[in-house]
Amino acid sequence: MAGLKIRSVLVTGSNRGIGLEFVKQFAEAPKPPELIFAACRNPEAAQSQELKDLAAKHPNIVVVKLEITDPASVDTAVKSVQQKLKGAGLSLLINNAAIMSPSTLETLTAEDMMNVYATNVIGPMLVTKALHPLLKKGAQENCSKSSIVHISAGLGSMEEVPSLFTAFPAISYRCSKAALNMLSRCHAEGYKEDGIISIAIHPGWVQTDMGGRERAPLTPKKSMVR
Amino acid sequence: MAGLKIRSVLVTGSNRGIGLEFVKQFAEAPKPPELIFAACRNPEAAQSQELKDLAAKHPNIVVVKLEITDPASVDTAVKSVQQKLKGAGLSLLINNAAIMSPSTLETLTAEDMMNVYATNVIGPMLVTKALHPLLKKGAQENCSKSSIVHISAGLGSMEEVPSLFTAFPAISYRCSKAALNMLSRCHAEGYKEDGIISIAIHPGWVQTDMGGRERAPLTPKKSMVR
Repeated sequence: MAGLKIRSVLVTGSNRGIGLEFVKQFAEAPKPPELIFAACRNPEAAQSQELKDLAAKHPNIVVVKLEITDPASVDTAVKSVQQKLKGAGLSLLINNAAIMSPSTLETLTAEDMMNVYATNVIGPMLVTKALHPLLKKGAQENCSKSSIVHISAGLGSMEEVPSLFTAFPAISYRCSKAALNMLSRCHAEGYKEDGIISIAIHPGWVQTDMGGRERAPLTPKKSMVR
Repeated sequence: MAGLKIRSVLVTGSNRGIGLEFVKQFAEAPKPPELIFAACRNPEAAQSQELKDLAAKHPNIVVVKLEITDPASVDTAVKSVQQKLKGAGLSLLINNAAIMSPSTLETLTAEDMMNVYATNVIGPMLVTKALHPLLKKGAQENCSKSSIVHISAGLGSMEEVPSLFTAFPAISYRCSKAALNMLSRCHAEGYKEDGIISIAIHPGWVQTDMGGRERAPLTPKKSMVR
């Protein structure tokens, strides 16, 4: 990401794994963003210590409390982001927060399907909808475009089901990522006229709490420089 | 469907639209199934009268009360199906029941996303999971295969988003059908060894309560003989 110059970015699920790596790389870039909004569910938890340490070193990191599945929390978070932006728009949103469940066809429950969909699809929908006015403003200011990046997954690919199914059934996760890919296409289409780009990316199989620290072949850092 | 010989079939959402047409065509086929389980949420409602009239004419139609989003209702319905089958398996499941919401990126809510996903994805998941043992038995008996047909939609196609988005944003519906396509692929992969086929089909834009009776180009009957 060394060559990029982004004025402001918001990353969800930023206290761990890929989300934390995004914040790190933005903060340490040769031309770092003026504002890096590092959103996570619970900034006060032990799991957020690394993020807080990073924010202590980089005054352009603003840690934001955000529970993406809760419309009231999204509303509060977006208001605080708007305040910090002081009338400016947002250049980039990275919808990274997600959960995984190893459910098989045999163990799958309605509750599991619902929970995974809520975090992996409804969350990005709520966050994007609430940030749309700021992203639109960002696109107008920059004389370029602003962007939404949805962190999807290879497991959400219809084509790859046969090759990966036995090792990773993860039905509720797969269904949620297929739906997220569709949401991303809808954002791309619906926000086109506003100068907002929307893409869904597969970061690879990364060494995170979700991906498994021992089995995954990629470090979070390598996932971004491939 | 004239050339088909199917021993038993269960159709969800069978009191209206495409579901009712499936039941009609099975009942009136030259070699009708021995048992046609016509499942719907509320067989006693006025909207189910046409189905009940049809069942009165065809003794092989068994009307089954089934709320696909409620695990307890699914359990009760499957028990009654099993009883009627008297030890035999099920040849075909048509997951047809679905809802539509015309939500746009602006009007979309978490509740709408959740409701549409519950009916259009979690429902087929629960029904299929509960009927899996009967479908497996059906495949063994028939010396052929048993099948799951998921009624999907063109609006669930990633490729077609650009051409249809302005006329039909229907975000929650699109996301649900993309997820249903993934569920269908998972069923195909996971149940392969059991001799169960799973496919997702797009019936076309059909004159139903959901499709709109005036604008849609296809009658339910034509949707099946194309």
